[in-house]
Amino acid sequence: MKPPDTPAAGAAGLVARLRAQSPRVHCITNAVAEAFTANVLLAAGAVPSMTVDPAEVPGFVGRADALLVNLGTLDPQRRTAIEAALPAAREAGRPWLLDPVFVERSEPRLALARQLAARHPAVLRGNAAELAALIGAEADDRAVMFFARRQGLVAAMTGATDLVTDGARAVRVSNGHPLMGRVTAMGCAATALMAGFVAVADDPLDAAVACLAFVGVAAEAAGAAAHGPGSFVPAFLDALHALAPDDVAARARID
Amino acid sequence: MKPPDTPAAGAAGLVARLRAQSPRVHCITNAVAEAFTANVLLAAGAVPSMTVDPAEVPGFVGRADALLVNLGTLDPQRRTAIEAALPAAREAGRPWLLDPVFVERSEPRLALARQLAARHPAVLRGNAAELAALIGAEADDRAVMFFARRQGLVAAMTGATDLVTDGARAVRVSNGHPLMGRVTAMGCAATALMAGFVAVADDPLDAAVACLAFVGVAAEAAGAAAHGPGSFVPAFLDALHALAPDDVAARARID
Amino acid sequence: MKPPDTPAAGAAGLVARLRAQSPRVHCITNAVAEAFTANVLLAAGAVPSMTVDPAEVPGFVGRADALLVNLGTLDPQRRTAIEAALPAAREAGRPWLLDPVFVERSEPRLALARQLAARHPAVLRGNAAELAALIGAEADDRAVMFFARRQGLVAAMTGATDLVTDGARAVRVSNGHPLMGRVTAMGCAATALMAGFVAVADDPLDAAVACLAFVGVAAEAAGAAAHGPGSFVPAFLDALHALAPDDVAARARID
Repeated sequence: MKPPDTPAAGAAGLVARLRAQSPRVHCITNAVAEAFTANVLLAAGAVPSMTVDPAEVPGFVGRADALLVNLGTLDPQRRTAIEAALPAAREAGRPWLLDPVFVERSEPRLALARQLAARHPAVLRGNAAELAALIGAEADDRAVMFFARRQGLVAAMTGATDLVTDGARAVRVSNGHPLMGRVTAMGCAATALMAGFVAVADDPLDAAVACLAFVGVAAEAAGAAAHGPGSFVPAFLDALHALAPDDVAARARID
Repeated sequence: MKPPDTPAAGAAGLVARLRAQSPRVHCITNAVAEAFTANVLLAAGAVPSMTVDPAEVPGFVGRADALLVNLGTLDPQRRTAIEAALPAAREAGRPWLLDPVFVERSEPRLALARQLAARHPAVLRGNAAELAALIGAEADDRAVMFFARRQGLVAAMTGATDLVTDGARAVRVSNGHPLMGRVTAMGCAATALMAGFVAVADDPLDAAVACLAFVGVAAEAAGAAAHGPGSFVPAFLDALHALAPDDVAARARID
Repeated sequence: MKPPDTPAAGAAGLVARLRAQSPRVHCITNAVAEAFTANVLLAAGAVPSMTVDPAEVPGFVGRADALLVNLGTLDPQRRTAIEAALPAAREAGRPWLLDPVFVERSEPRLALARQLAARHPAVLRGNAAELAALIGAEADDRAVMFFARRQGLVAAMTGATDLVTDGARAVRVSNGHPLMGRVTAMGCAATALMAGFVAVADDPLDAAVACLAFVGVAAEAAGAAAHGPGSFVPAFLDALHALAPDDVAARARID
């Protein structure tokens, strides 16, 4: 077993804390991702709620421990729901996370994502194409660090190797499996789970790193058991539920 | 094999009747639950339809054998759809069931649920927190029985042991598996399936009991085969499809 | 191995081309089908996008290789999205496909489907009940061929044996498995995948035949491995991902 002061041991400790505290995560997320996201949160030990009705969102957010705002399948109702949710999160002192899905494919979505990124999400998670669109330039390490520092947030750029940075520190997580790219809403669900980690961690950067390592280790376990993207999904959920913190500590690759 | 006059044999008989008659269930349900609910109905032998467009709901309800109204992810469109569906169900002489999801977390939803509970659903199914919010007091057996009698409906309170009551009789079903709580929309899908049972049964209380026993026995079979909440879902659907009425009769725990 | 000039070998060639070209398919589809449809496209090697927001649809359609219009869970937003999508597809020179889900159960939906069928979809796919409603008579071979010729489209009528016709040619595909009828959105997802095949094929009839043979062969593989409708789904996705073109050529039953 690795000593408790490694990043991997820190991530494992947050996995244990997530299960012990069962944080509630309210998700304003896209229609495609909703069911899988709820199942990922439940399997990992968190508690999801998913309504996007503007009249109900403040009540749900006020009773939650963290808020996810995901811009996939954006529509007028979800736009209004986001505007109702952010003040409720601020008032309740809850962190919120931003997932700017597919901003590189839609101008109005990119404009909204830029406005939201200025409203202090604890973490913004996207892939290289999404971060490049937000930054307005290629999303190399330097550009992502500058973006995180300028915006005052933690940026988590996911890919074969993930980069997590608050502008001062930069951490790399290299767990994961290629089948993650053949299943819809893997990234969306990971950001939702990250909201649960942010709710229980002292530092959003540590939370983002722990979440990505946990998800990546679970994906590796699932990939070893699966015959393709279909059987990968139940195996991934099983792993989120079954992995011991010691397994996470032993297998996490964090630099 | 148990003699045919036990509650377990009665439940098994209704499972056989559900498969023979393939009732159509129109579901106005939440976005998270829609796909899983449709798959539960299909696996068990019923036929789902799911549109929430107010213009189309009356046509679908009129051609269905029962209606489910589930209050999760309530939004203006679903509110209007419910108002269009209830008169259509009444006119066609079809039973309807109410699932007051998360009413304890949202004031406007609780107010709507109370109005709907007064409009003669055949069955109202919820967990203890949801029933407590509706009743306005702790949902102990006496309070739930009083609520059912006062409202003139069958109340089904689900948990480790389920309570089904019409205010005069009280039946307990103790089948089930802990992994049910780690999968989203299990309760929602169970209420949808219960609508199918109500459509084919002579008595809504018997229908609710049969449904909960069937779901619980299927969950036990799935839990024995599964490695976690991910593999539990396909195993549960397989069991709904494969369980023989004799298996249900042998394993149902109904008091 | 069959010689390369058989219909089965032609279908296998299109499977290989789909994987090589990874076409983008924008799907305006029903809420129940969205996640499964995205997973079918990803497993097969295509790239889905799913937004139904009218403001964003033109941008997504313009960047896609084909468009799916599915009429399940039709609502005002989806109606507007369809009106925004069709001109965008025409302008970009992209083919579009129509799936008239459940038109036999809803008058307003049938009226819309008839209007859309006159706006030159490359392929219209439905089951016998849906095609009968559109045609206004029993959907026998002659009537479906006449309908396809009159409308200037390829009609794909799916069932135990599928019929694909452009009015002049008629091709039959007899692959498939009974469990397909016990899983929601199988037909919806097949039409979405067909859009991917149309994007990479020279002829929409060949594309429709290849897609139905591929889906049917994958369903047969899944049916052999599955214990019921629950385990059928992951096995089906695994097969879409794993099947070699030679397997498709060897197992496709196309007349």
